[in-house]
Amino acid sequence: MPDMNYSSTFIPTLREVPADAVIASHRLMFRAGLLRKLANGLFAYLPLGLRSFRKVEKIIREEMDAIGALEIKPTVVIPGELWKESGRWDSMGESLLRVKNRLDNDFVVSPTAEEPFTAIVRDELSSYRQLPLTLYQINTKFRDEIRPRYGVMRGREFVMKDAYSFHAGEESLDEIYKAMGRAYRRIFKRCGLSVIPVKADSGAMGGSGSEEFMVESEVGDNTLILCKSCDYAANVEKANCKPDFTALSSIEEAKAAAANTPAYEKISTPNVKTIDELCTFLNTKPQVFIKTLIYRAVNVELDLSSAPGCEKLERKKPSPEAPAVYAEAFFAAAIRGDLDVNEVKLAAVLKAAEVSLAADDDVTRITSAPVGFAGPVALTGIPLIIDHSVTAMSDAVTGALEKDLHYKHAAYGRDFTAWMTEDIRTVKAGDSCSQCGSELYTKMGNELGHIFKLGSKYTHSMKVTYLDENGKSQTPIMGCYGIGVDRTLASVIEEHNDDAGIIWPISIAPYHVVIVPIKYEAVKDAADKLAAELTQAGVEVLLDDRNERPGVKFNDADLLGIPWRVVIGDKGLKQEIPLVEVKHRSEKENRNVELDKAAAELAGKIKEELTKLNS
Amino acid sequence: MPDMNYSSTFIPTLREVPADAVIASHRLMFRAGLLRKLANGLFAYLPLGLRSFRKVEKIIREEMDAIGALEIKPTVVIPGELWKESGRWDSMGESLLRVKNRLDNDFVVSPTAEEPFTAIVRDELSSYRQLPLTLYQINTKFRDEIRPRYGVMRGREFVMKDAYSFHAGEESLDEIYKAMGRAYRRIFKRCGLSVIPVKADSGAMGGSGSEEFMVESEVGDNTLILCKSCDYAANVEKANCKPDFTALSSIEEAKAAAANTPAYEKISTPNVKTIDELCTFLNTKPQVFIKTLIYRAVNVELDLSSAPGCEKLERKKPSPEAPAVYAEAFFAAAIRGDLDVNEVKLAAVLKAAEVSLAADDDVTRITSAPVGFAGPVALTGIPLIIDHSVTAMSDAVTGALEKDLHYKHAAYGRDFTAWMTEDIRTVKAGDSCSQCGSELYTKMGNELGHIFKLGSKYTHSMKVTYLDENGKSQTPIMGCYGIGVDRTLASVIEEHNDDAGIIWPISIAPYHVVIVPIKYEAVKDAADKLAAELTQAGVEVLLDDRNERPGVKFNDADLLGIPWRVVIGDKGLKQEIPLVEVKHRSEKENRNVELDKAAAELAGKIKEELTKLNS
Repeated sequence: MPDMNYSSTFIPTLREVPADAVIASHRLMFRAGLLRKLANGLFAYLPLGLRSFRKVEKIIREEMDAIGALEIKPTVVIPGELWKESGRWDSMGESLLRVKNRLDNDFVVSPTAEEPFTAIVRDELSSYRQLPLTLYQINTKFRDEIRPRYGVMRGREFVMKDAYSFHAGEESLDEIYKAMGRAYRRIFKRCGLSVIPVKADSGAMGGSGSEEFMVESEVGDNTLILCKSCDYAANVEKANCKPDFTALSSIEEAKAAAANTPAYEKISTPNVKTIDELCTFLNTKPQVFIKTLIYRAVNVELDLSSAPGCEKLERKKPSPEAPAVYAEAFFAAAIRGDLDVNEVKLAAVLKAAEVSLAADDDVTRITSAPVGFAGPVALTGIPLIIDHSVTAMSDAVTGALEKDLHYKHAAYGRDFTAWMTEDIRTVKAGDSCSQCGSELYTKMGNELGHIFKLGSKYTHSMKVTYLDENGKSQTPIMGCYGIGVDRTLASVIEEHNDDAGIIWPISIAPYHVVIVPIKYEAVKDAADKLAAELTQAGVEVLLDDRNERPGVKFNDADLLGIPWRVVIGDKGLKQEIPLVEVKHRSEKENRNVELDKAAAELAGKIKEELTKLNS
Repeated sequence: MPDMNYSSTFIPTLREVPADAVIASHRLMFRAGLLRKLANGLFAYLPLGLRSFRKVEKIIREEMDAIGALEIKPTVVIPGELWKESGRWDSMGESLLRVKNRLDNDFVVSPTAEEPFTAIVRDELSSYRQLPLTLYQINTKFRDEIRPRYGVMRGREFVMKDAYSFHAGEESLDEIYKAMGRAYRRIFKRCGLSVIPVKADSGAMGGSGSEEFMVESEVGDNTLILCKSCDYAANVEKANCKPDFTALSSIEEAKAAAANTPAYEKISTPNVKTIDELCTFLNTKPQVFIKTLIYRAVNVELDLSSAPGCEKLERKKPSPEAPAVYAEAFFAAAIRGDLDVNEVKLAAVLKAAEVSLAADDDVTRITSAPVGFAGPVALTGIPLIIDHSVTAMSDAVTGALEKDLHYKHAAYGRDFTAWMTEDIRTVKAGDSCSQCGSELYTKMGNELGHIFKLGSKYTHSMKVTYLDENGKSQTPIMGCYGIGVDRTLASVIEEHNDDAGIIWPISIAPYHVVIVPIKYEAVKDAADKLAAELTQAGVEVLLDDRNERPGVKFNDADLLGIPWRVVIGDKGLKQEIPLVEVKHRSEKENRNVELDKAAAELAGKIKEELTKLNS
């Protein structure tokens, strides 16, 4: 008996493309009848789509089990109390779907699950002997995207594999973290995906504490910085590069470098505000300017007690277990005129929840000048953070803190110093690789997975402890590791398609083989027998028993993207040795294969393909 | 390599029983480390529990697939718009978890999924050729129980298999309905469960349109009426019985029966209101009384245009697609004094959303007397529904619609007639079986599954149509079919346990075999080898490699309920032919088995057990 007759399943293919489907996977998942829309950002997988979806889940599950992670199943609807304990009830934005039930209890429809996993471990953990412990789930998640789009690539409800590991020490965390990194590479390889693992050093944890697994995508959320020669890959938010200047690390060096620079002096720059205007006005290049920007930072954890102008700021705990923060603080950031400040890096330096350009009013108040004339010389009452590029500037032009005035001959070390000197530069295409010096370029990417050393953020706030070998109470540290199942599936289609439809990798294909009888009634016996033989050999078969024209069936077979197609016609069967036509979806040409040998040959080829992906 | 070492998994067994765990499954799921609580009615399955949970899911999936049902995966969070279309947004009570997102869109956390399934089919259905179509999901559900209890037996979040079938006609619906009934029987049998299939004729659809699958439970929600001799089984809400009277079907017969009854006359019954008081007062039995009750019904679909006192009532559609209903209407219901009115039957007769006893004020207004003196004689201005039992009463006592007055010698047909005569009797233990006449008895039960002919309720309100063979637009009819996965799992434990713990049926057991080395280090090679041989033979093995006393390991093995236990000790291994001790969880005695033959013998026995359950 065949695995499934086309007429018994439910594969509503479409000729039309939904109007909002701008990317290939979105278009093809609808056209091939894998998916239907229930509402904006909410989709139903139909039988064919679910088959592939489950295969992605299965691959993820196998690789998680292989590294000793244990699957559990908490609820999707999580008590709000746990989120209040962790502090995320307040800190998480509006993408968190909060619900009140009839008894006025608070609930959250899980977007990630640090809280329940931490709560479960908290209740059971007593001794270091129980560690390490890695738990995971593959379960429904919800994020209330304001603009869900690109089909399941950015939906509201989705399925995520999320794992959480608990450790007595860094070494153990590092071991599982690395095992996860290897497992993730295997998962994506088995799915036939080319991912770009992007190291994203979080800084706070030291060492390599965060890695994102990206796929290239025109409509990606992320800009990736990649090296043309070596394997350097980073999210632009975290990327660094080889400096095109010699940074000076001491004030003495800086002063020496400025030995021949004339004293700084004011120059009149009427109606000149932007760097471009200044370049024209002074007939020079952006590289000679020091760009100075005023930022407003929110919930700053960094100690500002010694920072200029911050003497009166108070650090408070938003909740008993949360770290103390300054609700609001202002900072000046200076960088060479041709470079841009990276706000994510700046926020990391400040340990701030959020950093954004200050409002014009605040700029005027702080710099005593309209927007456009800020500069590091004689700037007081605000902490100044400079990029390393500024340390190499011994004869610069910069704002003079007065309308229509700039300074020339400003020199770092001599005319101004910084409160902090950090890498806050946005890396761009054309910059040099920090690893090998080659040219960097950019790609847009979507994140499919993320592994991350969490440290004690949740175990601390949710008060998880265990007794160590000496009977002393300790707080375990954690790692967290996520993969979006829907996104992974959609990305497989993004990578494997052509004008006619999907080209599934064998591992994710809803069926391995589609049998297309030219006229089913005429070749029923041979078609059914071949389907049965294939099924017997462990091959998943779709038999197109529909009463449709061959052209329609061929088009649907291509659209559905089943890896192997076998065409059975009267003519081939009437040969002395009956023949069928076999074709791989990725190839143009049919091959004649003896009917009696087709099942064994296909089973062999499929096994080969699977082995290759799984190796 | 063994399937799993005890020390590598996460099985936090408990000696203590949670205080709120009053039933065996709740106690044992916590004690054996299958489950933990996140909040009232919200539970997390731990690795061992999830293994069994997935096996229940798999059995259900296999049986659904076997009857041609197709699995899909809609979302858990469903757009409120679909529920407004079906009318359930308004009609469903507060157990429905309604959510608003940040954009003020309405959502529902799915308790059942008629709406999304109907919407999906609506968008794809065009021709009768696509029918029948049966779709299902196994997915998360939420019901906001006011008093969640008994662990996962009545939780807030749970997993349900829900299937929905779509048909062009009754015959096709009946065919799938029957196939589902057979599949459900197989599912429960394979899980090792004794279920009581309870026919619950819904009346509205005609024929057998509803069947519930119950398990006996002390704390069950349902009272079941069962026959001591035959297979009659019904929910008390729908049960009928063989009448202990001769119902008269025509007024002429009734008048003839009352030929010798004196004319009815008033008797003074000061301060006598209840049937019991009347019996004492008149020195007689409840059987001679006609009990008359006034009910208030809400959202009545039944046509009342010809009903007494209902002339001014207006029938309105609560929403454009919903059927027209009377928002409120009052009814008198009369029944023999020793019997009770079944409000569920009465609501079904009236096609009402809800029926409850009228408030005292309403009773006084309608009967012109205080509560306790209602009666059918001379009752006007309200529709009177009588139970068949009343048709056999030709000389009865009943309320006289005046304070402290009753009638005696009241006769049906002569002194009063009814607007409707129906079976509205509550069946009790001791009544006679309608099928065979034997005595009925009761049990408390929990519903694990329900199959139901829905008709066109949803396809009508949500405007689903197809073109029939003649090109005419038609509305398909539906069936719906649910099984609670969590409840099924908990019920298996309820049925299979003893004082020491769970006794899993082999099909649902988290592992088939537990290997208990007396001292692991001493017998490591033999234990690992046996585990590897069993794994190789397809047997799922838990190897208790912990450094615990044998007593602790034996107790945990019993608590966990793994069907087969193999004890490996130094002593047995040192025999000329090395021996291990094999014991089934349900047996008391160990058996010595040759180490080298143990794997093959156990694999054989397990296969046998599985075959027996699956046959």
